[in-house]
Amino acid sequence: MIEDKNQQRTDLSELGEFGLIDHLTKNFVINHKSTVKGIGDDAAVLDFKKKVVVTTDLLVEGVHFDLSYMPLKHLGYKSVIVNLSDVYAMNATATQITVSIAVSNRFPLEALEEIYAGIETAAKIYNIDVVGGDTTSSNKGLLISVTALGEVENEVYRNGAKPNDLLVVTGDVGAAYMGLQVLEREKEVFKVNPNNQPDLDQYTYVIERQLKPEARKDIVKLLQDLDVKPTSMIDISDGLSSEIMHICKQSKVGCDLYETKIPLDPQVISTCEEFNIDSTTVALNGGEDYELLMTISQDDYPKIKANPNLTVIGYMTEESAGMHLVTRAETKIPIKAQGWKNFNE
Amino acid sequence: MIEDKNQQRTDLSELGEFGLIDHLTKNFVINHKSTVKGIGDDAAVLDFKKKVVVTTDLLVEGVHFDLSYMPLKHLGYKSVIVNLSDVYAMNATATQITVSIAVSNRFPLEALEEIYAGIETAAKIYNIDVVGGDTTSSNKGLLISVTALGEVENEVYRNGAKPNDLLVVTGDVGAAYMGLQVLEREKEVFKVNPNNQPDLDQYTYVIERQLKPEARKDIVKLLQDLDVKPTSMIDISDGLSSEIMHICKQSKVGCDLYETKIPLDPQVISTCEEFNIDSTTVALNGGEDYELLMTISQDDYPKIKANPNLTVIGYMTEESAGMHLVTRAETKIPIKAQGWKNFNE
Repeated sequence: MIEDKNQQRTDLSELGEFGLIDHLTKNFVINHKSTVKGIGDDAAVLDFKKKVVVTTDLLVEGVHFDLSYMPLKHLGYKSVIVNLSDVYAMNATATQITVSIAVSNRFPLEALEEIYAGIETAAKIYNIDVVGGDTTSSNKGLLISVTALGEVENEVYRNGAKPNDLLVVTGDVGAAYMGLQVLEREKEVFKVNPNNQPDLDQYTYVIERQLKPEARKDIVKLLQDLDVKPTSMIDISDGLSSEIMHICKQSKVGCDLYETKIPLDPQVISTCEEFNIDSTTVALNGGEDYELLMTISQDDYPKIKANPNLTVIGYMTEESAGMHLVTRAETKIPIKAQGWKNFNE
Repeated sequence: MIEDKNQQRTDLSELGEFGLIDHLTKNFVINHKSTVKGIGDDAAVLDFKKKVVVTTDLLVEGVHFDLSYMPLKHLGYKSVIVNLSDVYAMNATATQITVSIAVSNRFPLEALEEIYAGIETAAKIYNIDVVGGDTTSSNKGLLISVTALGEVENEVYRNGAKPNDLLVVTGDVGAAYMGLQVLEREKEVFKVNPNNQPDLDQYTYVIERQLKPEARKDIVKLLQDLDVKPTSMIDISDGLSSEIMHICKQSKVGCDLYETKIPLDPQVISTCEEFNIDSTTVALNGGEDYELLMTISQDDYPKIKANPNLTVIGYMTEESAGMHLVTRAETKIPIKAQGWKNFNE
């Protein structure tokens, strides 16, 4: 599907570990005062004036991404984004990352350069210093492990939601999952007819949400500008229902989520219709949206109500009331997590 | 070689991601004041009073370890140690780690429990809080990515060595490499005759250095007690020669290393004789010793000279003099790095 136009292949063994890391990281610049020393010693040295958040995520080929339709540059970009999203979900400012890559010999140097170009782009856009990492060989496949650090003054946990708080989501949900469905379908078509040129114009948004997601750095700033501190916050990596359940369980509250309020992009709705999938199911269980889900006090409602980035989708209840979806037909059905099923696949 | 006496096999899919992480991390305790929030949210929250060091390392099955002789508990332990060693090489106190594991379905829950038991043991012994991580499936094999954080007041880089400084190494070197040779030989014997019971008594030390290395936390304290701040420091993961070259290049100095001064355990010498390998070559290029290599000012020599943990093995020279090994025959030969050859294998 995605043609490799770059025919140059430099064998990784030509550089060795140190030459390789030097080569791949030579364009990285340090922007943060908190970065005392970046790449090039046994460890990076950082100097924070505030509290620090740390989070880490692994992306594994064949589990989290498929290189038959994921361009390597996008993969590098996405590997940063999924970690930054966790930093922003703490109401923190992301400042540094480390990147470790395990890669088999089937990848030439040019492939690693593409991945690092994506990492560099993300680092520039999100203003992050790349301060360390490790590059090593693997017997099979590609694996990227990123650890992100950030600074925070008023961290927001998952456990602070109170009954009557509003449940608020940023952006829209379900698009990344539908993008994946489109890409998987095209992969099957390609297998049958490699000369087929797919017309993906009508799927631009959903595909981009899958291949090149963004993290909601803007929301941390917006909340500050609006003078709103959420009572709880989490990022949506596994689907709305499983994230709601995390907040409810850790905060010991229940929840009423309104089906009609869930923000869906028109392209999600049309793609769901085409694939004959229920769009609410996709929104609840799709995952990889990297939006933020938060609860805010009713007192803060006037501050957020006109904002196009924030949608109220329900409210929190007493724990004993349970977690429910209020459907279009105004019936209440319990929310269940489909969650994360990698080990079942 | 190492029999799996634990016949219980619980499929990983029985727990799902969240149940799995809860289950594996339930014994972890938080000891450090700087850990505000550990596992259980989008990110850990830390509050440091000093500067922070961050380092990360990947261990990949078939590249960095072989499960036919590496017990899983030792592997968990070692995955922590290799990172702590980098923290101590900055003259820092290690305080927190995050652990990410990618594992294929061939591993049952009990295998992950073993790995985590090793991680927990290392965390207890080295007084580290485990504050986060990720557990995911892989298509093939096992991979462990650890990120370690520490606090530091007087960090020591690789680039501070001056001409005439003494070159000092902790402990002894070469044992981990010879342990690997013994284990590889026994693996071949086992393939031919699985009923053979190997007698490894005479290799206890070298095998332990390979399978269950320790990091030199004690040296950071010792240097403090002796009131010695090294001018440069690095940990020995890739062999003495490549680490010396890092210090020389980054400090812009040369070096005379004395072959007769390199500290070798008697078991290394006897095993080298048995394998007909030159022990100096092993010490220079073996790697995985996790000792510390440092340079100290001549003024500090009286403070360290009686200490059994520290051996002076040479001194630094002007950069133009180059890097040399002074042999037993008192000839000078240039030091070359064999370095890291994973991509060539």
